[in-house]
Amino acid sequence: ARPRVGYYYTGKAGAEIPLEQLKNIRVKDYQSIPVVVKESDSVYDAISTMFLEDVGTIFVLDAKSNLAGVLSRKDLLRASLGNQELESMPVSIIMTRMPNITVCYKDDLMIEVCKRLIEKQIDALPVVNRKSPREFEVIGRITKTTTTKLLVDLVNRDLPLKEEKYD
Amino acid sequence: ARPRVGYYYTGKAGAEIPLEQLKNIRVKDYQSIPVVVKESDSVYDAISTMFLEDVGTIFVLDAKSNLAGVLSRKDLLRASLGNQELESMPVSIIMTRMPNITVCYKDDLMIEVCKRLIEKQIDALPVVNRKSPREFEVIGRITKTTTTKLLVDLVNRDLPLKEEKYD
Repeated sequence: ARPRVGYYYTGKAGAEIPLEQLKNIRVKDYQSIPVVVKESDSVYDAISTMFLEDVGTIFVLDAKSNLAGVLSRKDLLRASLGNQELESMPVSIIMTRMPNITVCYKDDLMIEVCKRLIEKQIDALPVVNRKSPREFEVIGRITKTTTTKLLVDLVNRDLPLKEEKYD
Repeated sequence: ARPRVGYYYTGKAGAEIPLEQLKNIRVKDYQSIPVVVKESDSVYDAISTMFLEDVGTIFVLDAKSNLAGVLSRKDLLRASLGNQELESMPVSIIMTRMPNITVCYKDDLMIEVCKRLIEKQIDALPVVNRKSPREFEVIGRITKTTTTKLLVDLVNRDLPLKEEKYD
């Protein structure tokens, strides 16, 4: 259908994703709502919350609502193995504690957060707002689902794949 | 260090990721080794394997070594809750069974597999080789960790971010 005359670029090598675009995508553009429990909540509560909200990682808040810890499915699975006291065991016993938590900020670049997820071998990290040197408010979450969505959006939103359209 | 004379492109808007490159990345370029258990193995065995191999998803093989099921951390957590019989309970009772498993093939495009992970809301899928209409050999695995790595590689390998080099 295309004319075979004149100066004409086939477009094959021309379809490109501007790197500038990826470099400008920040955490705040992609973060989702954090799922939290209190430090005094039981392991049983945390497991219920995990199933109810269908998330892989839960953040734990202290009495002042600041970030105190993180619970992964792995932490909860380990705790539940052969344990009868899940309802009386507080999550504070099994959580990963501050300051051993990898966090990110709303203005961080998504690509940098992707690297952090890979390097630290974690599935999710909290988006925090630093209120004081030791007080972090949890305002969002970034997971490997977020980063997978970003990759799909990058291709879909701006430059749909031909395979998708015509297959 | 660059000469300030002549025809010269600043490169600022020119830094681009060729879409062709992303479109050509296939499952076989990124798949990792699958972690498997047998259908007759116990839930306890599967949990041990999950911790030992540090994976979020395990594939279950039948007696002929074909794909029979999938186990997620969520499945194992659900099973372990209040259950005393993990060592005598076969994984076949709790696994997601074929044909209800989302699979992919080594020549599938990674970007298509990313979409499948998001649409099906799953964390991982097996890379299979179809031996007969109902027999699938498991030859690899793709997870949301794989897709996050792909995104990082896409930027890093070919067009390093300036932030990275000079910060």
